[in-house]
Amino acid sequence: MPPALRWAEPPEGPVVVLLDQTRLPTEEVELVCTDVPALVRAIQTLAVRGAPLLGIAGAYGVALAAVRRFDVEEAAAQLAGARPTAVNLGYGVRRALAAHQAAAANGATPEEAAAATLAEARRLHQEDAEASRAVAARGLALLDELLPGGSHRVLTHCNTGALVSGGEGTAFAVALAAHRAGRLRRLWIDETRPLLQGARLTAYEAARNGLASTLLTDNAAGSLFAAGEVDAVLVGADRIAADGSVANKVGTYPLAVLAKYHHVPFVVVAPVTTIDPGTPDGASIEIEQRPGSEVTQLTAPAPAGAAATGPGSGTLVAPLGTQAYNPAFDVTPPELVTAIVTEAGVVSPVTAGGIAELCARSRQVTIS
Amino acid sequence: MPPALRWAEPPEGPVVVLLDQTRLPTEEVELVCTDVPALVRAIQTLAVRGAPLLGIAGAYGVALAAVRRFDVEEAAAQLAGARPTAVNLGYGVRRALAAHQAAAANGATPEEAAAATLAEARRLHQEDAEASRAVAARGLALLDELLPGGSHRVLTHCNTGALVSGGEGTAFAVALAAHRAGRLRRLWIDETRPLLQGARLTAYEAARNGLASTLLTDNAAGSLFAAGEVDAVLVGADRIAADGSVANKVGTYPLAVLAKYHHVPFVVVAPVTTIDPGTPDGASIEIEQRPGSEVTQLTAPAPAGAAATGPGSGTLVAPLGTQAYNPAFDVTPPELVTAIVTEAGVVSPVTAGGIAELCARSRQVTIS
Repeated sequence: MPPALRWAEPPEGPVVVLLDQTRLPTEEVELVCTDVPALVRAIQTLAVRGAPLLGIAGAYGVALAAVRRFDVEEAAAQLAGARPTAVNLGYGVRRALAAHQAAAANGATPEEAAAATLAEARRLHQEDAEASRAVAARGLALLDELLPGGSHRVLTHCNTGALVSGGEGTAFAVALAAHRAGRLRRLWIDETRPLLQGARLTAYEAARNGLASTLLTDNAAGSLFAAGEVDAVLVGADRIAADGSVANKVGTYPLAVLAKYHHVPFVVVAPVTTIDPGTPDGASIEIEQRPGSEVTQLTAPAPAGAAATGPGSGTLVAPLGTQAYNPAFDVTPPELVTAIVTEAGVVSPVTAGGIAELCARSRQVTIS
Repeated sequence: MPPALRWAEPPEGPVVVLLDQTRLPTEEVELVCTDVPALVRAIQTLAVRGAPLLGIAGAYGVALAAVRRFDVEEAAAQLAGARPTAVNLGYGVRRALAAHQAAAANGATPEEAAAATLAEARRLHQEDAEASRAVAARGLALLDELLPGGSHRVLTHCNTGALVSGGEGTAFAVALAAHRAGRLRRLWIDETRPLLQGARLTAYEAARNGLASTLLTDNAAGSLFAAGEVDAVLVGADRIAADGSVANKVGTYPLAVLAKYHHVPFVVVAPVTTIDPGTPDGASIEIEQRPGSEVTQLTAPAPAGAAATGPGSGTLVAPLGTQAYNPAFDVTPPELVTAIVTEAGVVSPVTAGGIAELCARSRQVTIS
């Protein structure tokens, strides 16, 4: 699988090269971002997406501005505002910007400040790959503890693998670790309307890695729970508040309610950078509202040679003029979450105290 | 709106004419069925669908075979087997067949037997229109009782209006009655994957009737409940077991769990013919499994002049070879159902005793 994101030096660069996720699974096409507006557009059209990867993209975006001598502060503001709910995006942008500012304050030349910024982006990328390995190991250990049988049927939502990460991802990385250990019986994949990240991306990553997997409409998850076919739910997170409330792809909360009703463990897997101590609770999380056209129009993966997809390019499936409600995320309260698994440790039960303790242990969060 | 189903006499007929629901909302196109295999195909491709309307279609199908002098018994078997979960289909077929058999047993000529069969189909059609009116009035009275405020925000799933009925439908007819009485603040419409009956058909009927409505992905219903934006859930049913378990379009059960969790009334609206005293409980309901291609491929409403849509005609959105789980229905147990509203009365709480009493009161069910 081509990398989800890479930095290219001259002669190709300096550029940020993305695997265009709007074209998957039909085609593996790279999207070359030569400046920050192109990267902002890639973030907004979801050509690049997923909490940890957005942080990495944000950091490289600031580095790109520095290396190409654009206004670094303005670039940082544009990048951080591209998607409001994703806390990692802001985190990556801030880290790269802080590196640039520190270098400048120490009397570095523009070249040296740019080099320091790029080094910081690379460090974040590397840290995320390491976090991915750690989180997979911790997540598998937790699964084995929760489900002693050793033959796990796991339900997941949206896409949380190598396409969202500097490494192998979050929730998907745990499923992959279970698969490699011979303890994954089946991965149930929610298609994840409206943008079908489950069908397009997770089913692709599952197939690429040889997992036993089955796709379903988000609607059909209830039938699986009722039939006793789900041993655990594993999802990622886009932002975790200080009280343990989890903002994640819309459709996560209904799964948490179903899991609770059926006494099935509901596990959130995310790097510590997803925790935002500045957000006190679920009600304080700003939820991105996306265009209704994502619901009223069906958009298939973009064909070869087409411009990047965006709202308005699909086939209308509802009557013209239909109003749609399209929140990108929902919020799952801590009482529905069995455990939050991070590279720095597992919080279970999920309480404000447990979250605070984890943050105190974690270097990354104290830096942010 | 053109009628969802009509019988046409010569010179156009004898034929059964359907409004092709696979082409909505893009086009209002009629599909003319000149024989039973055409009607069976229309049922299987969902050109005609919805529990009560399937019963009417089944009865007219038997009448068509009788009028055109095909083998009536064989036609009845083909029609009844076209979709296994829909109890009304079998009911309509049996009623028309019984009328034919009774006429034949009384020495009727083939013409007279065919006329008796057609008369029975017309009677069922008329009864369903009357049931629709009665159920709407009873449903609105129940809503007003459950929600004294008088400004209802109702969530519905799939399509339950005039397109599924000889009249104005079931759950949608209740919302329509609330709208006409000035007491519907908003109809929230689940898009209803995989076939998008909510987006394609319910949003169309809501727009045609001037209801304040908003479409959402099935995933987003959880956010509405969490925000306190849903006052009641109104759904139809495809089969109700003797214990009050309700088989309905997949995605109904998760809504029932969400409604329970949020203390929101969950109301099932269906004609008495939907109750199957021969099915003891939810576990005994056979659930139709539909092709995985409905999930792995996106199918937009069929364009003008295209053949009737069916599996395999869409755009692939998952990797080639992806396996999909695609049950057409799920089962909601009686403890999650606040009330079952029928034309013959309301059962609440939903118990086997209440269902049996309702059936005893109802002429139609004792005849079946």
